[in-house]
Amino acid sequence: MSDDGDYRKVDPSRLEQFVTKLFSAAGVSDEDAQFMGHVLTDADLRGVHTHGTRFAPRYVEGLRAGGTQARPNRRLVVDAGAVGLYDGDGGLGHVAAAEAMEIAIRKAKEHGMGSVSVRRNGHCGAIAYYAQMAVDAGCLAFAATTGGTAIAPVGGIEARCGLNPISWAAPTRRGWAFNLDMAPSVVAGSKVDMVRQRGERLPWGWAIDAKGEPTDDPVAAREGGTLLPIGGYKGVGLSIAAEILCGVFSGSKFGETGGGSGHLFQAIDIEHVMPLDEFTARMERMIEYVKSSALAPGSSGITLPGELEWQKRQEYTTHGIPLDGPTRDGLREAAEEAGAAYDIEL
Amino acid sequence: MSDDGDYRKVDPSRLEQFVTKLFSAAGVSDEDAQFMGHVLTDADLRGVHTHGTRFAPRYVEGLRAGGTQARPNRRLVVDAGAVGLYDGDGGLGHVAAAEAMEIAIRKAKEHGMGSVSVRRNGHCGAIAYYAQMAVDAGCLAFAATTGGTAIAPVGGIEARCGLNPISWAAPTRRGWAFNLDMAPSVVAGSKVDMVRQRGERLPWGWAIDAKGEPTDDPVAAREGGTLLPIGGYKGVGLSIAAEILCGVFSGSKFGETGGGSGHLFQAIDIEHVMPLDEFTARMERMIEYVKSSALAPGSSGITLPGELEWQKRQEYTTHGIPLDGPTRDGLREAAEEAGAAYDIEL
Repeated sequence: MSDDGDYRKVDPSRLEQFVTKLFSAAGVSDEDAQFMGHVLTDADLRGVHTHGTRFAPRYVEGLRAGGTQARPNRRLVVDAGAVGLYDGDGGLGHVAAAEAMEIAIRKAKEHGMGSVSVRRNGHCGAIAYYAQMAVDAGCLAFAATTGGTAIAPVGGIEARCGLNPISWAAPTRRGWAFNLDMAPSVVAGSKVDMVRQRGERLPWGWAIDAKGEPTDDPVAAREGGTLLPIGGYKGVGLSIAAEILCGVFSGSKFGETGGGSGHLFQAIDIEHVMPLDEFTARMERMIEYVKSSALAPGSSGITLPGELEWQKRQEYTTHGIPLDGPTRDGLREAAEEAGAAYDIEL
Repeated sequence: MSDDGDYRKVDPSRLEQFVTKLFSAAGVSDEDAQFMGHVLTDADLRGVHTHGTRFAPRYVEGLRAGGTQARPNRRLVVDAGAVGLYDGDGGLGHVAAAEAMEIAIRKAKEHGMGSVSVRRNGHCGAIAYYAQMAVDAGCLAFAATTGGTAIAPVGGIEARCGLNPISWAAPTRRGWAFNLDMAPSVVAGSKVDMVRQRGERLPWGWAIDAKGEPTDDPVAAREGGTLLPIGGYKGVGLSIAAEILCGVFSGSKFGETGGGSGHLFQAIDIEHVMPLDEFTARMERMIEYVKSSALAPGSSGITLPGELEWQKRQEYTTHGIPLDGPTRDGLREAAEEAGAAYDIEL
């Protein structure tokens, strides 16, 4: 990707500090601004640019316009044994999501498992981040969130089901953790939006237009059209399951209703059931087995979810993160508005 | 399906009693035999014949041959707050699975959530059944199990990933519960096996052969070939996630290792977070919204996971369950071996 003429590399540390400054200038606490710099840069470091610093200008604009609360009254509103309900109070979604997963981890250490729903929150970005938090604490993790409504139901033609991602994660002995983070559509909505932003066409098989016909036009896909689910009714079912877990059950938005984003964060403390060392030894045998398959023609190797993101982190930490033109333009404009220096490119 | 010449209708009550007799004759307790009659007939009543009474002769044969324990020492071996580990001791998988979900529900009522892993178990059939148990108790449910290894990993060509189904379920006000029960492959392995048993060909897009080429031959698909995952790397990821949750984490089999089937059963008590009545009211609004989409050309209506199975239950309870020829032949032969009368056809 970094071979593309429109990509330039930026320094991860400078990028994190730069993004922190943008949020500080928008009135959030130092702690929250630092976390936003960290979490958005972390997504770019894993190569998940769809949820990286490219979103920073939009979040900052939300704070300036008042749609996002700069100093929200975030709090746990239900605290009942292994379960809880956290209210984001319309603040920055990432900060509330991380706090909710922290609570789920604490509950897991006490009860064996913790499950914390989040309501009335902002966009929380890539949920793999929160799943990784639980893995770092020796837990199995599940995370999910509501997303934009863009998939047609089974038998229907209009967007009624959300691009709701789900994530499972587990510790390994390999540096990288198993971490699946997937939307129920063939591709994430933000990937379609990045193609649209660059003025390119979609591959066939990603989307259908308002009449239900296949399309390669990202505008037709997102305005009146719908994104195709994986596995037909199965992808639709995954979308609705996450809508129930994150939207219906939290008291947050679902379908057409308001109420902010909803999430679900769960952690199981592995040591409550078996020694962590035994678990990771078993994971190692499973990974070895999966990787023992003969390679497909042209394949450069067998990878598991989370592995490629870890490889990118190694590469980008050393050689810089490649950011595309629209992302850099957005950050440069946000710097001007915030009175900050745009000093991130290598 | 019942229009097909090879299908004949059977009476649900007689089928349940008949299957119960087969298991009693194979030496299991009356209680376990009755449950097997009930749970296998229940799958047929929902139209899930891939996991219905067609499997009864195979289970009974396992009991006779000694591979399945008729009187296992099933027990909870780890009981730690909200989590537990249940040992099936190589008995009938369905009975242990139902007991494990009962424990998860009890834990959910006490701690808000319960999560019970199962190890060393037999095949437990359709996991939607256990998810429905939790729904009937006012819970959100998650259930998953290991399945046969039949999917190639990303970048590979040999079967290394399991046909591991996952299920989420939630109560509604509509008679039927939301209940998604899906394998990570385009179709379940048992569906391919039923096509093979009938001597038919597969639709293209279900499977690839040992060389990685598309095939419509069910034998090539199951012997050396692999089944295609939904959404490419996403379906593979779902498969591995369930392998971790059910196989690695339980201390049960994963990949090529022995150790019996592993499962995970989870229940969240809805009332710990919001009144059940409020939850089902919100579910109703979500369902109404999904169903408000314009219909696709030729569509007879918009359905959610669990709805069609409920419609079939109404129809089959009144008019009988259609069973195909191989299923009836298998049951007839099992009746002869057990010295029972084959008296189920209408």
